Amino acid sequence: MAMKVDLNSDMGESFGAWSMGDDEAMLDIVSSANIACGFHAGDPSTMFRTAEIAKRKGVAIGAHPGFNDLHGFGRRTIRGDSPAEIERMIAYQIGAMQAVATLVGHKVTYVKVHGALNNMANEEESLALAIARAIKGVDASLINVCMPGLLMEKASGTIGIPVVREFFADRTYEDNGSLTSRKQPGSVLHDADAAAERVLRTLQDGAVVTTSGKRIPIEIDTICVHGDEPSAVAMARTIKAKLEANGITIAPFSGA
Amino acid sequence: MAMKVDLNSDMGESFGAWSMGDDEAMLDIVSSANIACGFHAGDPSTMFRTAEIAKRKGVAIGAHPGFNDLHGFGRRTIRGDSPAEIERMIAYQIGAMQAVATLVGHKVTYVKVHGALNNMANEEESLALAIARAIKGVDASLINVCMPGLLMEKASGTIGIPVVREFFADRTYEDNGSLTSRKQPGSVLHDADAAAERVLRTLQDGAVVTTSGKRIPIEIDTICVHGDEPSAVAMARTIKAKLEANGITIAPFSGA
Amino acid sequence: MAMKVDLNSDMGESFGAWSMGDDEAMLDIVSSANIACGFHAGDPSTMFRTAEIAKRKGVAIGAHPGFNDLHGFGRRTIRGDSPAEIERMIAYQIGAMQAVATLVGHKVTYVKVHGALNNMANEEESLALAIARAIKGVDASLINVCMPGLLMEKASGTIGIPVVREFFADRTYEDNGSLTSRKQPGSVLHDADAAAERVLRTLQDGAVVTTSGKRIPIEIDTICVHGDEPSAVAMARTIKAKLEANGITIAPFSGA
Amino acid sequence: MAMKVDLNSDMGESFGAWSMGDDEAMLDIVSSANIACGFHAGDPSTMFRTAEIAKRKGVAIGAHPGFNDLHGFGRRTIRGDSPAEIERMIAYQIGAMQAVATLVGHKVTYVKVHGALNNMANEEESLALAIARAIKGVDASLINVCMPGLLMEKASGTIGIPVVREFFADRTYEDNGSLTSRKQPGSVLHDADAAAERVLRTLQDGAVVTTSGKRIPIEIDTICVHGDEPSAVAMARTIKAKLEANGITIAPFSGA
Repeated sequence: MAMKVDLNSDMGESFGAWSMGDDEAMLDIVSSANIACGFHAGDPSTMFRTAEIAKRKGVAIGAHPGFNDLHGFGRRTIRGDSPAEIERMIAYQIGAMQAVATLVGHKVTYVKVHGALNNMANEEESLALAIARAIKGVDASLINVCMPGLLMEKASGTIGIPVVREFFADRTYEDNGSLTSRKQPGSVLHDADAAAERVLRTLQDGAVVTTSGKRIPIEIDTICVHGDEPSAVAMARTIKAKLEANGITIAPFSGA
Repeated sequence: MAMKVDLNSDMGESFGAWSMGDDEAMLDIVSSANIACGFHAGDPSTMFRTAEIAKRKGVAIGAHPGFNDLHGFGRRTIRGDSPAEIERMIAYQIGAMQAVATLVGHKVTYVKVHGALNNMANEEESLALAIARAIKGVDASLINVCMPGLLMEKASGTIGIPVVREFFADRTYEDNGSLTSRKQPGSVLHDADAAAERVLRTLQDGAVVTTSGKRIPIEIDTICVHGDEPSAVAMARTIKAKLEANGITIAPFSGA
Repeated sequence: MAMKVDLNSDMGESFGAWSMGDDEAMLDIVSSANIACGFHAGDPSTMFRTAEIAKRKGVAIGAHPGFNDLHGFGRRTIRGDSPAEIERMIAYQIGAMQAVATLVGHKVTYVKVHGALNNMANEEESLALAIARAIKGVDASLINVCMPGLLMEKASGTIGIPVVREFFADRTYEDNGSLTSRKQPGSVLHDADAAAERVLRTLQDGAVVTTSGKRIPIEIDTICVHGDEPSAVAMARTIKAKLEANGITIAPFSGA
Repeated sequence: MAMKVDLNSDMGESFGAWSMGDDEAMLDIVSSANIACGFHAGDPSTMFRTAEIAKRKGVAIGAHPGFNDLHGFGRRTIRGDSPAEIERMIAYQIGAMQAVATLVGHKVTYVKVHGALNNMANEEESLALAIARAIKGVDASLINVCMPGLLMEKASGTIGIPVVREFFADRTYEDNGSLTSRKQPGSVLHDADAAAERVLRTLQDGAVVTTSGKRIPIEIDTICVHGDEPSAVAMARTIKAKLEANGITIAPFSGA
């Protein structure tokens, strides 16, 4: 039986006069584009351009909402907003992305929460539930991209929205299924071949080997590759080639 | 035959810890609430609260997009964005407002562009067309609130979106149908009774007397009252009472 | 021997079209004005106006720097900046305030860090040291307003900058000298007379009674009163009257 | 007699996670660095790093204040602020830059206003005067970098602050001494050798040939080269080499 997996990447992270990443190149590789919604990165014109190229290249698009923190690029942990405030902030960004996608003739089929907010949601159930409610409230057919086994996936089940499970191509894992902190040496893989090999093995085994050496089962619908550095584009290309060479088809999970 | 008119007011202009206007009070008076979309004022939670109260009180809601200029409250003229950039910025804000309204169970039925951007659109056809395209692109049933006879109304016709025509309760008019500059003495009415009397006469006559004394015909679907000062709430109340006392029903133009 | 104490309050927290607090009224009461520097609140014109009124009324001024977080009003805990980044951010705001004060002919004599950043500095020594270094780097004669016994006071001593010790008029204290969390019922005093009485007793005793009933010694150079609510102005006035009625002079610690 | 001229370039235009320009490379070429102050570009840490490298390489630094318009990079014309508001906004940015420079042990010796605000100041005398007052108010020894013959230079004289006169290496000139609009074809020189040749000739002749073919006298203290594109670094290097090969020394006008 043929295997199929999605490749997703964060995109549309330019802002005004500042550009980031090589979206054109990444959109030739991935099958799903997580588009920043103007809060941690991106702006209406960047969102438009990214969605337009994705449309042209047959790439599915998702809203990639984050904290309202341009200066920190959504990577800073910000505490003080209530779950209700987070819910409205997420709904706002999804709606903005949907409207801009409509201008292009494309359609938002999923949501993937960005950076620090995503991490916090996997640590605080009230946030995970708020985000799931926001997604359902705006459009109950939107798919939430989650790390398998963590709070966001559970909250999506509780609220009743579809999920897909994501694997990070360039990060190591802990026994509880979370990512090893970037502060730990070796937690980020920089070698494209090693990353590609590990992705393939994890897909074929249905399990990932954690930093402690333990083998934990993991279901994977989509693989996250990064695009904000030149070397990342090369890594994404290597992973795609490796998977295809092993008979795995790259296609959007959302059928877009 | 019974006469009917809408009363609209700008709302949801608080931002974070800062509040502005008495939205609760105004939402007892008006039939349509123009809700700021987070660019010149407002934020997701303020938008939510405003839409929620509007829903409860049976008030129609519209997206009130403006320049991305919190510091200037959307009142500063900003030149340098292309019409295409304006188009995407308007679409973004409408979509954000729609999504937040969906959380509340309310529905955005119209758009009214805010402040300096509205003024610019009535002076530059390319902007007016861009705005009309944005509205149509997001949802072709959205009604554009326009000043009668100016470029935004014409562009809406060209692009093919529905419009309603707006009269400003507290501003004087020039012969070409534009508002007298706020810098001119007497251009802003402060007396509630005088304003109410003028609104009634204009509605009944189907014409407004300009500052030159000329009488120009004017079709009116909605009357804009301001809500950002305590005296403005009183004026809105006076106008509403005057109209109702003269057999004119206040109801949303959008039928919401 | 006559007793003397300073009264300080946060000011200049308006932003663009949004106003907050009654700075004119508070500047008739306090002897030191902590002026927001445009990052969590305030803007160049608000800073100017506040400094100008303070100058006219003989009130000392301090820079009141905070997180770059207008939406959260500097009250959200933001993690992710290095101490070096915090150091530069604090220096930036102090310099901005100094320059605006110079336009008015007034002089910044002290610094008081705002909100969440102040709380974080009292919990993370590296932040407290970074802030003290920023102050010393910009102007070694600037006085740092600190809560007695906490990390910011210690770091100021380590780096070698002058400090004054602050008491909060409307907050209860824990045994370790920190404020009781606002989330605890009763942690914020709302009765002006009770607050005034407690301030007087604490000053006269040189000790404060904590929520556990313990009496801990406390040195006080300045008393913080809040000004962002109408009731707060009344409380500040009551405290001042109580202190003066008991022979305590209100005067800036900084001799400005 | 040996000729001497300054080369200046806009720097420190990165913001948070976004970088712009190759400041390290440019700081090996120019003698004066105009550092963005966080309003149209830059942030405290970027300002610090830029000032630090400038210090190490013996490059003079100036504050490069602009509109509070990150999204538009200070290039959008914004109308609606009073001259008094502009004055305080400029003072704020200069003070912020001075304080950050102090951390590094460097010193701001001049001001060059950025982008759209600079253009507006050369068209509206009240703005030019406000800017000159801000500079004088903060530090009367700061030098204002002006285009010769335009309003900013005159206002600086009226207010009584020192000026230096600037020539743009890659732009053509009109008969009144202003730059040809970027919208005109040919108004921006892209050939490094042609630009270098023109700079040399203009310096040696004390006159520039305008687009109409007229020769207008021009005094030049500093030459502006751009650094935000890779080709711009090459052009700056070519210009510097050309001038030095012709016996002209590159050195800061400010003697820093």
